[in-house]
Amino acid sequence: MEHNINFLIEFLGTIAFAMSGSFAAMQKRLDPFGVLIIAFVTSVGGGTVRDLLLDVPVFWMHDMWSCFVIFITCVISMIFKSIEHNFKVTLFIFDSFGLGLFTIIGIQKGLTAGLNPTICITLGTITGCFGGIIRDILLNKIPLIFRKEIYATACIIGGTIFFLMDKYSDFSLAFTQIFTILLIVVIRTLAVKYQWQFPKFYDNANKHLG
Amino acid sequence: MEHNINFLIEFLGTIAFAMSGSFAAMQKRLDPFGVLIIAFVTSVGGGTVRDLLLDVPVFWMHDMWSCFVIFITCVISMIFKSIEHNFKVTLFIFDSFGLGLFTIIGIQKGLTAGLNPTICITLGTITGCFGGIIRDILLNKIPLIFRKEIYATACIIGGTIFFLMDKYSDFSLAFTQIFTILLIVVIRTLAVKYQWQFPKFYDNANKHLG
Amino acid sequence: MEHNINFLIEFLGTIAFAMSGSFAAMQKRLDPFGVLIIAFVTSVGGGTVRDLLLDVPVFWMHDMWSCFVIFITCVISMIFKSIEHNFKVTLFIFDSFGLGLFTIIGIQKGLTAGLNPTICITLGTITGCFGGIIRDILLNKIPLIFRKEIYATACIIGGTIFFLMDKYSDFSLAFTQIFTILLIVVIRTLAVKYQWQFPKFYDNANKHLG
Repeated sequence: MEHNINFLIEFLGTIAFAMSGSFAAMQKRLDPFGVLIIAFVTSVGGGTVRDLLLDVPVFWMHDMWSCFVIFITCVISMIFKSIEHNFKVTLFIFDSFGLGLFTIIGIQKGLTAGLNPTICITLGTITGCFGGIIRDILLNKIPLIFRKEIYATACIIGGTIFFLMDKYSDFSLAFTQIFTILLIVVIRTLAVKYQWQFPKFYDNANKHLG
Repeated sequence: MEHNINFLIEFLGTIAFAMSGSFAAMQKRLDPFGVLIIAFVTSVGGGTVRDLLLDVPVFWMHDMWSCFVIFITCVISMIFKSIEHNFKVTLFIFDSFGLGLFTIIGIQKGLTAGLNPTICITLGTITGCFGGIIRDILLNKIPLIFRKEIYATACIIGGTIFFLMDKYSDFSLAFTQIFTILLIVVIRTLAVKYQWQFPKFYDNANKHLG
Repeated sequence: MEHNINFLIEFLGTIAFAMSGSFAAMQKRLDPFGVLIIAFVTSVGGGTVRDLLLDVPVFWMHDMWSCFVIFITCVISMIFKSIEHNFKVTLFIFDSFGLGLFTIIGIQKGLTAGLNPTICITLGTITGCFGGIIRDILLNKIPLIFRKEIYATACIIGGTIFFLMDKYSDFSLAFTQIFTILLIVVIRTLAVKYQWQFPKFYDNANKHLG
């Protein structure tokens, strides 16, 4: 049961990020193979960096299903594309779900390796964010994470709540997982909808010139 | 004999990509040390990512000859440069050969590690393409792989033919290697010459505006 | 004593690069969490790549102090920022010290792993330069290393002198370390102050048009 939930989370996260990568690549007008590569990198990028840092076997190297799921998702995205007009919303929804799902997987892999909670949250944030960062670098966009909206912040808040619930509450692990994944999605959605943002730093030098 | 062929392939691939990196860096008017760094990264980038993913020792860490070959190639490229007017063609030829050579090396390293054919082709594509992607990111260009021409596609086709010939034909491994390397070079050259390209995705939203 | 010096060098390097990352991110007007992420990546980036290449445990994964130091440094940078007008000079000073400190750490880790001197200097250059390269790629700037000033060259010269002093002189290791770190800082500072640069390559094709 426990194992099934983890598998399901990874499965959904893989689909969500493969879709996010496919739509971003189609928006940049790449050809089908380019779309497939961007979908692959977006989907496995975060987990690959995580596994390299943990020095465990990279998850997709010995496991056909990730590659297979990404391929199928990518083909469906391309077909679905022709009836889909609004890329922005679709891309956003899949990106948010992938973010939540992968953050929690990353934290749990860190816990399994016996790491400190702070390091685990860092690892979860890396798993959640790096696929999207690599996607944006390859497509020559400023990474989404550094544009206006709250992004990594959602991972850090979600990850912290996951630890507190796991340690101090009586909820089952499955409930804690689903709750914190949805929490990350909700924080990110509300942040974009109501344009929440932290105050930014201004360049004093420029202000004096102004 | 078998070992010698593999060594020769890696040797030629290292030279081809070191040249490709040197010319791209000189075109961007970097200084000699900058050129050397870009040549190094282009040449070892793909293989380094491959070895990290396979969790085997990174090939150039315990082996002086790669560094030495890259250094010599880089110096020769800089001298040769002064009598060379057409960067574009030179860069293209070396890039194509590097692509073919490194793809086949990547696939064989995957086979040695006992991986699934699909994963091996992915690994070959990564070995062939990543050096060039890192080069283009460092030089702040849109990666060559995502511009018009067929690039990763050539790796995937070449890799698939390699598997089919290796399994179902009576040709020697050496012949299969050389044939598929040349096939990748030919596909890429014809693709650029005759401007072959896959249909691209258009943004429906923009089309409606047009 | 030996161990303490090494620890102090790593401690100061972590602070220097965390400051360099924070100031670069504030200059680009990121929000506080974005600043923290850039500070983290700049500070641990070079060492992470080094540890992955050496296949040793990534230094910050089992060690809380790096994360803690980066967090404190980042908060201090943000507060200090409001009274600091000249980002450029501050960023430059911290970047230079980080470069010198991390280059020497990288070389020593390579020596511990029993690698060849040339590979050790390469590893030192990667440790020193990669944090800054990743920072600049994420902030969508042309990496500092490829802009006008002498940068990697300072690492290579400093690293070579380190080897020569370590092998052929009677100075203590601590003195050799401090001397070569300062040498790297001085070379880089003088290079920028007097605009030292290597001759660059010009595109003959363009020259003919001129």
